Amino acid sequence: MTGLSFRLIADDRAARCGEIMTPHGPVATPAFMPVGTQATVKALAPGTVRATGADIVLGNTYHLMLRPGAERVAMLGGLHVFMSWPHAILTDSGGFQVMSLSELRKIDEKGVTFRSHLDGATVELSPERAVEIQALLGSDIAMQLDECVKLPASRADIERAMRLSLRWAERSKRAFAGKGGLFGIVQGGDDMALRHESLRALVDIGFHGYAIGGLAVGESQDVTNRVVGEVAPALPANAPRYLMGVGTPENLLDAVIRGVDMFDCVLPTRNGRHGVAFTRRGPVSLKNARHAEDPRPLDEGSSCPAARTYSRAYLHHLVKANEILGAMLLSEINVAYYQELMAGMRIAIAERRLADFEAEAKAAWAQGDLPPR
Amino acid sequence: MTGLSFRLIADDRAARCGEIMTPHGPVATPAFMPVGTQATVKALAPGTVRATGADIVLGNTYHLMLRPGAERVAMLGGLHVFMSWPHAILTDSGGFQVMSLSELRKIDEKGVTFRSHLDGATVELSPERAVEIQALLGSDIAMQLDECVKLPASRADIERAMRLSLRWAERSKRAFAGKGGLFGIVQGGDDMALRHESLRALVDIGFHGYAIGGLAVGESQDVTNRVVGEVAPALPANAPRYLMGVGTPENLLDAVIRGVDMFDCVLPTRNGRHGVAFTRRGPVSLKNARHAEDPRPLDEGSSCPAARTYSRAYLHHLVKANEILGAMLLSEINVAYYQELMAGMRIAIAERRLADFEAEAKAAWAQGDLPPR
Repeated sequence: MTGLSFRLIADDRAARCGEIMTPHGPVATPAFMPVGTQATVKALAPGTVRATGADIVLGNTYHLMLRPGAERVAMLGGLHVFMSWPHAILTDSGGFQVMSLSELRKIDEKGVTFRSHLDGATVELSPERAVEIQALLGSDIAMQLDECVKLPASRADIERAMRLSLRWAERSKRAFAGKGGLFGIVQGGDDMALRHESLRALVDIGFHGYAIGGLAVGESQDVTNRVVGEVAPALPANAPRYLMGVGTPENLLDAVIRGVDMFDCVLPTRNGRHGVAFTRRGPVSLKNARHAEDPRPLDEGSSCPAARTYSRAYLHHLVKANEILGAMLLSEINVAYYQELMAGMRIAIAERRLADFEAEAKAAWAQGDLPPR
Repeated sequence: MTGLSFRLIADDRAARCGEIMTPHGPVATPAFMPVGTQATVKALAPGTVRATGADIVLGNTYHLMLRPGAERVAMLGGLHVFMSWPHAILTDSGGFQVMSLSELRKIDEKGVTFRSHLDGATVELSPERAVEIQALLGSDIAMQLDECVKLPASRADIERAMRLSLRWAERSKRAFAGKGGLFGIVQGGDDMALRHESLRALVDIGFHGYAIGGLAVGESQDVTNRVVGEVAPALPANAPRYLMGVGTPENLLDAVIRGVDMFDCVLPTRNGRHGVAFTRRGPVSLKNARHAEDPRPLDEGSSCPAARTYSRAYLHHLVKANEILGAMLLSEINVAYYQELMAGMRIAIAERRLADFEAEAKAAWAQGDLPPR
């Protein structure tokens, strides 16, 4: 198939569970997308990512356009073939990382100009080039180029960036010739009037799905929840809703409750590389000496073999010894926990008991990890 | 079972193929042991190590005694349980790494005293403590503590170290109370008379197997081959023979031809982490730009899925981008190639055509990698 379709399966108050059909298979929602920045989810073989339950991963246009290059990936059969991931891929537009990683960036009506963090080369990225690159990569879900403003910011700055993003959204839609779908991105910071204006204009243009951008950029969790709680339910019910760059397990639950369908975040893999595991009982730092002689697995009830097989003492040792296997196992455990959490939410929504699921999950996180033996 | 037995299955001139029975299962010889320095074969999950065909891995006593500590590993059920490797494990004595890694080492009749490279603590390692540590780890094959002299060295230095190692061998044998076997180590540098004296004295003491130490320490391949060619055939036919710290695929072939049964080396994993693959066609540097647009796998005829699945372009990208997955895949490919090479030698010996196997393998290595497309 080409294009993208979304099927709503069930809802529970504002929360929804559904399925996105992509050219590379279905994505059960609410979905968490592990981040495959440079054509690899860090420290995980693609088969392991799949085994955690992921239907879709995110690829970073900024990184891939600079290395190995979009044309090169296309010549090699596209990103799915390149990274041996035959399932769905969403690519971001590159804009966010231009802002955070590159130097000497200049934003004007045309697009962004920046210096590559790899070799200092000057690179231009327009809305048209961003969708072209994503089509070359072969992504199932492409994102429009937008300008994302860090919070707090003045209303004038937020408004200017939101309007520029809307003009770029129109140009993205016109230029889009990819095989999958294209998502627009709602901007407007923490200003509800601007958020609604952005949302309405994007729906008028018409996209396969809608993202909420400009959050997880420094604001409090209250602000995130308030904006998501206002924006998500106002988005079209028949299209997937994607909250970009979020978040912790609690963030995901809070946003699903408010009607969000899709997420991406580097937290599970980044924290895994830094010795922190996400579990049913909240985050666990394996660096902590209390694990040094603990023969128990991290979580005997996990769906992830690594969480059930290896002792805490062994994981502690790997982390202390800075062994690659520590990063591998904790990344696997974390991505698996995120997928397990999403699967739990999908079932709870289908059974209309998400409020109970929320209470149980938050109680278990609050109770914390097992006491030392 | 406890103890260790060795069964000779076939021979071809000096080369032998056989099987070592250990408390943790059989080891087909000639065998290559991937090195699991800190209770992990670097960048490989234990299931992956097993899938490459390895029957046995090596653990480093020096590293494990310092972190997590031998008593702690014993309390946690032993090294097999700790690292989730239910198959055979050989541990070295720690002596070699005391010499190469620690500071302020002092060697006297009693043993070696050194400062830990981790925290500077003063640690003593005697022949008795070395076998005690290995028994605490639960190793299937323990090695005596020896003094290994770097070549070139004076005859007097080589002789002194050899005689000290013999006295330590006696003490090791007396102290040994492990569940598996204990190997003595032939020293004597490049001096054949000293080598023969060491060998005879060790056989008089009596060990489950015999190692050739003091090679792969700076000498030329000619010297290695000459010493191995003299020592290996003089060792008891009914015990396994282990050439320590060797080596490249060519080194392994040369030594098997001369009658060696066991090897360990960090090369396949270390080179894997540095972007170099071992293949039927010799070493391949994935850093090389000629791979950047090459859609072909590294070796379509390999037994290793990673060598057949991923394109050279992708492996090149992972290495250039310094991604952990690059180290994971190349380590897997390299250990699998080593195991494939050993399996090939075992079959060739059983069929008495090792000379043909040697000619074919060396011709393929000499021919080199595929030409660019």
